[in-house]
Amino acid sequence: MSTEYHSATGNEIALFEMAYRRRIPVMLTGPTGCGKTRFVEHMGRLLDRPVVTISCHDDLTSSDLVGRFLVTGGDVVWHDGPLTRAVKDGAICYLDEVVEARHDSLAILHSLTDHRRTLYLDRADEVVPAPGPFMLVCSYNPAYRSSLKELKPSFRQRFMTLAMDYLDADREAAVVVAETGIEPPVARQLVGCARVIREADEVFHFEPPSTRVLVTTGHLIAAGADIRDAAEACILAPLSSNGAINEGLREIAAAALATAETAFAQSVPEGGPRP
Amino acid sequence: MSTEYHSATGNEIALFEMAYRRRIPVMLTGPTGCGKTRFVEHMGRLLDRPVVTISCHDDLTSSDLVGRFLVTGGDVVWHDGPLTRAVKDGAICYLDEVVEARHDSLAILHSLTDHRRTLYLDRADEVVPAPGPFMLVCSYNPAYRSSLKELKPSFRQRFMTLAMDYLDADREAAVVVAETGIEPPVARQLVGCARVIREADEVFHFEPPSTRVLVTTGHLIAAGADIRDAAEACILAPLSSNGAINEGLREIAAAALATAETAFAQSVPEGGPRP
Amino acid sequence: MSTEYHSATGNEIALFEMAYRRRIPVMLTGPTGCGKTRFVEHMGRLLDRPVVTISCHDDLTSSDLVGRFLVTGGDVVWHDGPLTRAVKDGAICYLDEVVEARHDSLAILHSLTDHRRTLYLDRADEVVPAPGPFMLVCSYNPAYRSSLKELKPSFRQRFMTLAMDYLDADREAAVVVAETGIEPPVARQLVGCARVIREADEVFHFEPPSTRVLVTTGHLIAAGADIRDAAEACILAPLSSNGAINEGLREIAAAALATAETAFAQSVPEGGPRP
Amino acid sequence: MSTEYHSATGNEIALFEMAYRRRIPVMLTGPTGCGKTRFVEHMGRLLDRPVVTISCHDDLTSSDLVGRFLVTGGDVVWHDGPLTRAVKDGAICYLDEVVEARHDSLAILHSLTDHRRTLYLDRADEVVPAPGPFMLVCSYNPAYRSSLKELKPSFRQRFMTLAMDYLDADREAAVVVAETGIEPPVARQLVGCARVIREADEVFHFEPPSTRVLVTTGHLIAAGADIRDAAEACILAPLSSNGAINEGLREIAAAALATAETAFAQSVPEGGPRP
Amino acid sequence: MSTEYHSATGNEIALFEMAYRRRIPVMLTGPTGCGKTRFVEHMGRLLDRPVVTISCHDDLTSSDLVGRFLVTGGDVVWHDGPLTRAVKDGAICYLDEVVEARHDSLAILHSLTDHRRTLYLDRADEVVPAPGPFMLVCSYNPAYRSSLKELKPSFRQRFMTLAMDYLDADREAAVVVAETGIEPPVARQLVGCARVIREADEVFHFEPPSTRVLVTTGHLIAAGADIRDAAEACILAPLSSNGAINEGLREIAAAALATAETAFAQSVPEGGPRP
Amino acid sequence: MSTEYHSATGNEIALFEMAYRRRIPVMLTGPTGCGKTRFVEHMGRLLDRPVVTISCHDDLTSSDLVGRFLVTGGDVVWHDGPLTRAVKDGAICYLDEVVEARHDSLAILHSLTDHRRTLYLDRADEVVPAPGPFMLVCSYNPAYRSSLKELKPSFRQRFMTLAMDYLDADREAAVVVAETGIEPPVARQLVGCARVIREADEVFHFEPPSTRVLVTTGHLIAAGADIRDAAEACILAPLSSNGAINEGLREIAAAALATAETAFAQSVPEGGPRP
Repeated sequence: MSTEYHSATGNEIALFEMAYRRRIPVMLTGPTGCGKTRFVEHMGRLLDRPVVTISCHDDLTSSDLVGRFLVTGGDVVWHDGPLTRAVKDGAICYLDEVVEARHDSLAILHSLTDHRRTLYLDRADEVVPAPGPFMLVCSYNPAYRSSLKELKPSFRQRFMTLAMDYLDADREAAVVVAETGIEPPVARQLVGCARVIREADEVFHFEPPSTRVLVTTGHLIAAGADIRDAAEACILAPLSSNGAINEGLREIAAAALATAETAFAQSVPEGGPRP
Repeated sequence: MSTEYHSATGNEIALFEMAYRRRIPVMLTGPTGCGKTRFVEHMGRLLDRPVVTISCHDDLTSSDLVGRFLVTGGDVVWHDGPLTRAVKDGAICYLDEVVEARHDSLAILHSLTDHRRTLYLDRADEVVPAPGPFMLVCSYNPAYRSSLKELKPSFRQRFMTLAMDYLDADREAAVVVAETGIEPPVARQLVGCARVIREADEVFHFEPPSTRVLVTTGHLIAAGADIRDAAEACILAPLSSNGAINEGLREIAAAALATAETAFAQSVPEGGPRP
Repeated sequence: MSTEYHSATGNEIALFEMAYRRRIPVMLTGPTGCGKTRFVEHMGRLLDRPVVTISCHDDLTSSDLVGRFLVTGGDVVWHDGPLTRAVKDGAICYLDEVVEARHDSLAILHSLTDHRRTLYLDRADEVVPAPGPFMLVCSYNPAYRSSLKELKPSFRQRFMTLAMDYLDADREAAVVVAETGIEPPVARQLVGCARVIREADEVFHFEPPSTRVLVTTGHLIAAGADIRDAAEACILAPLSSNGAINEGLREIAAAALATAETAFAQSVPEGGPRP
Repeated sequence: MSTEYHSATGNEIALFEMAYRRRIPVMLTGPTGCGKTRFVEHMGRLLDRPVVTISCHDDLTSSDLVGRFLVTGGDVVWHDGPLTRAVKDGAICYLDEVVEARHDSLAILHSLTDHRRTLYLDRADEVVPAPGPFMLVCSYNPAYRSSLKELKPSFRQRFMTLAMDYLDADREAAVVVAETGIEPPVARQLVGCARVIREADEVFHFEPPSTRVLVTTGHLIAAGADIRDAAEACILAPLSSNGAINEGLREIAAAALATAETAFAQSVPEGGPRP
Repeated sequence: MSTEYHSATGNEIALFEMAYRRRIPVMLTGPTGCGKTRFVEHMGRLLDRPVVTISCHDDLTSSDLVGRFLVTGGDVVWHDGPLTRAVKDGAICYLDEVVEARHDSLAILHSLTDHRRTLYLDRADEVVPAPGPFMLVCSYNPAYRSSLKELKPSFRQRFMTLAMDYLDADREAAVVVAETGIEPPVARQLVGCARVIREADEVFHFEPPSTRVLVTTGHLIAAGADIRDAAEACILAPLSSNGAINEGLREIAAAALATAETAFAQSVPEGGPRP
Repeated sequence: MSTEYHSATGNEIALFEMAYRRRIPVMLTGPTGCGKTRFVEHMGRLLDRPVVTISCHDDLTSSDLVGRFLVTGGDVVWHDGPLTRAVKDGAICYLDEVVEARHDSLAILHSLTDHRRTLYLDRADEVVPAPGPFMLVCSYNPAYRSSLKELKPSFRQRFMTLAMDYLDADREAAVVVAETGIEPPVARQLVGCARVIREADEVFHFEPPSTRVLVTTGHLIAAGADIRDAAEACILAPLSSNGAINEGLREIAAAALATAETAFAQSVPEGGPRP
């Protein structure tokens, strides 16, 4: 897959740049696979800053973030963690899926996200002020409504929030074409299929297919797979392990694949009216 | 037992090859014992790639996957884990029963399953880009409906899904014959017995007998056991520890063993019509 | 106590031998104290294989099974655990009360119980194929109906199941006589008492007295204790700590001790009719 | 306090000796402070065996029982735990309040309590057969009805059970006099007070006062305290922290202290009739 | 603040001395801040014994109490913990807020609180008999009614209980004056305010203000604060974070501050009648 | 952002100074972002004492506070933690968000907050009396009504409480202007918007926007962002991830931004009446 970023509107780029200039931490929200990680990588290139990515998970300790003592040659020597290295390098530090992290691990970020802009390494007895270009970026998907995993509002208030979403149908189809080389009408069929499933998301209880999923489907089609087999394997199968729901989705998806061109015609009239 | 793979339709081999060529991770689903592990070993031989198998369980840490520091000769030296070795070797890395793993251990796979195709070893301060032939394959059995152990949809979306199932009756009986050397009519009796239990699976709450179970039963019969004793020890006994349910199953199984030939006659007419 | 095995029917010996010849893992089920451990020791002598016994419990880690690194002379050296030693020696490895083990510890057994017959020591980076005579035997008591402690059906399917049970009344009394040297009529009284309690097991909620308990009771009687004191101390007291239930049981047991001879007369007529 | 044992009936001594001769493990049950620990110490002197006492608690690991590796002079050396030392010395090993231990720690005892009479030290790779005089004794108080802390019946069946209880009133008063030197009528008042509270135990929900508590109360009286102050501080105060219940108990206790002589007169007529 | 002890009645001093002479462990109960810690320090001076204080908390392990192995100069050397040091020195060992400790940590105290008076250091393989002057004192506040944190009755029975309470109004006011130097009428206002809140304690659900709180309030007044500001900051604010309850308390307290002199007049008539 | 402190009334400065002179620990309460941290830093400068800040979290152990043994050059050497350093230096030790800490970690503070003013380092076997200028300050936000995370009243009683709140509208707008350089009318619009949301706080269930949030919003506006975009990204987005509530808030905020000038006119008439 290519690593190009496909902007939805351009507005998020301007706001990110303002936050960078004013040293405001940024929180990216939006559905899985809508391009948050690519956006941060894109901004790193635009602002000419390295990006240090940290995938958050339940077991991520503050030591994993800031560093720990390791035994080397008989002595105990401090080794900076990725967050500490990002602060010292003035990098963009990107905490992916921050809501997955243990909340106590996040407390270490407080002094970096207020007027102090400083990392306190209590165990190493060191204080690291963040240089000007250092920037903290986090992301999470608010669609997951797990009470255990909700970010605290006081934590969210430390950030400017950029709400991201799926691309519109035309842009999304263009991305699938550009990434996989399949024919535009086929790409539009896939996008149409994804969009009806996304609309059904509120009734059924699942994570709708992302642009990344459509790109994977396109790759399979480009490799010779039948469009229905590819949609089954990449779009429908991951939605649910409950057979009953899958049947309903399968009908919706089949109808969508059949009527996708029409849907595009209605929602994205291009080059004149269609009947 | 032999290690030969018995393909159900051949379609899963073609799709797996497409995924390999397009560097798409693969998720195998299907009931326990339907041949997922053998299929991956078979594809490894077909694609001429080594297969690194990791059995997932509750206690599998990300250190078990990627590696850890060990003390050797007084110093602390990093040792790659099986996942890291598989990435560096461009192998097929097979995570068996991935749903059993702690979800936080799986976060390490995110950067390997999107456009980055890279393993970040934060503790070793090393970045390992996956070479072209590296492929990640996972498997799980969606029939287990434990809310605690459900794979996240956003994780499942990172993979192309190949849904595997039991062989059809003829192929399954042929496998039992080929593996154990029992007579074909006896093998068909065992298959018929397994199929009625599989159909009853939605009423009772148990894991139905797999092809592997039938092969074990066949081995016992080949060693001289009575067919009913063997079916009791290998097919019926593992189904449930609840006596009441076992009585019902025992009747169904006994009837199935008696009528198996007929059932085959109806579902698999071979060499002309049967009354 | 002696270590002799008292076979119930002889059928379990034949099935165990078949499983050994066909390299099928064996699962022994049955009530506590019905002779599962002695049976495995007996088969070890019969097949001339050493038996490595591992008592399973909640805290048994996979490291306890397969081995771990230990510091010796400044270096870290791998030490095989009992399972690894059993595999390398081609022994019979007996996991007693396997249902007590943490389920994640059992995942290490998967590759030993399918066509691979191989132990993967990921941490030691070693692969150990099991030699021909190696055999895995597990045991558990299905009467414990704890949802937390239920073996997974997919695990049980990896084994041939041998369902063991208490001996019939005559054989059980003979065992008590042989082990303790008490008079046969006294032994029959104890067996009769145990059998009425076992029948009452479904109403009350307790573990019924095993043959081992009767042997212990017999030892106490042989040492001079009154039969009622011995039955109270060894049979009744362990049944429940709830006084109310104990009263009911005590009446049943007292009646059983009194009528045991009669019960035997009816169920086991020996040497002519009794009134 | 003295360490003398005050036998209730003498029967428990005879049964314990039989169990010792026949190598049967013993389980002592009975209320806290009724003399279980002193009884074991008494039997150790009688049988001329050392007693190794282990106080069980939630955090007692099997390593605490059997031993562990310790670093000495740079090397790792195995150190036997108290259970292993007791087995090797042929001592009486006394597990006090065994129900408090984690159940998984108790699995190590299984092979010591059946026909094997052997301790398996898997980690040290050592097998320790128990010499003839070794004896395992456990104790617990069945009055605690915590479902989490109930001993498994299959564990209790491994032991001969000796149910102990408070001494009868005369003996208990004699013990208090012998231990503290207070006047017999005062001791009888204390015993009478304790007995009415023990009877009320089923209505209120508390642990009734033990002989040890009465001895403590006697000591305080011998040191000059008023009988009512001493009873308040040692008998009533520990019963409950709930004020309401304490009021009811205080009235019962006050009445009992006043009428104790009479109660004794009725239940233990000594030296002629009393009005 | 000064460290003087202000006795409520003198009775607790006499009982403590008796317990010391008879080697009975002592349990102090009573509300937070009523002077338990000062009382133990006072008794230490009176009996000329050092006091070793251990603040109990959830994370206090038995190793923290008795000692542990530490690496020094390459070897592992045992270091006594504070409890072991106290036993060896024949000190008064004071476990403050013992109910906070993990119950399994308290099991180590059993053999110190019965006739054995011995500390068993299983890990160090050492047995430490307590010398005559050693005394164990614990404290806890029974007003906390947390089921998880209730001391077991069998544990409480090992101690003589001294129930402590707030001083009477006159003595309490005298303490506040002596400690802070504020005017007696102001001190009486504070005491009156505290007493009405303590009476309201059963309706509202909070910890009432202690003498220590009144001393703190007095210090603030002595430093120049307004009596109402000081009472708000030290007495009312800590009571509850629930605004609604605070309003009710504030009215009660305001009324109490206004009528305190009168209340004193009624409950503590000194130097003649008041209208 | 600047680090200046903006006093609400001046009263909290006077009370803090009295507490400092009288060595009374201080507890700061109030909503997130109202200036508690800045206030402590301000008082440190005023009293000429260093401030040691410790951000509390679930994983903060008492070792993190007081220190631990570390291996250096083969030996184990004690390293003071930040609390110990603060005590020894006579600094102001500030425990930020103390309610987040594990309660057992807080027990170490008890002896520092009563008449002892002493830190007991049991593991290092050291007793550290606090010098005169040492001061302990804690903060927490009582608006969080998590029962698990409620500070114990007996802990709160150890402190003088200073209840802090948001600035009044004029001062708050002045702060936003001073910090960000935006026009006063725009700052007043933001303050008005925040105030209506704060009032709606009791109906909806969220953390209202703090002054810090308004300063961030102002920075974004100063960087060129539209006021509505900035308010959306910094004020509204962090309030809730629940779309439905956000719609209601968005209407309230939009109305507030529109009518803010009027609201100011009514609540803060300056320089003459407004219509």
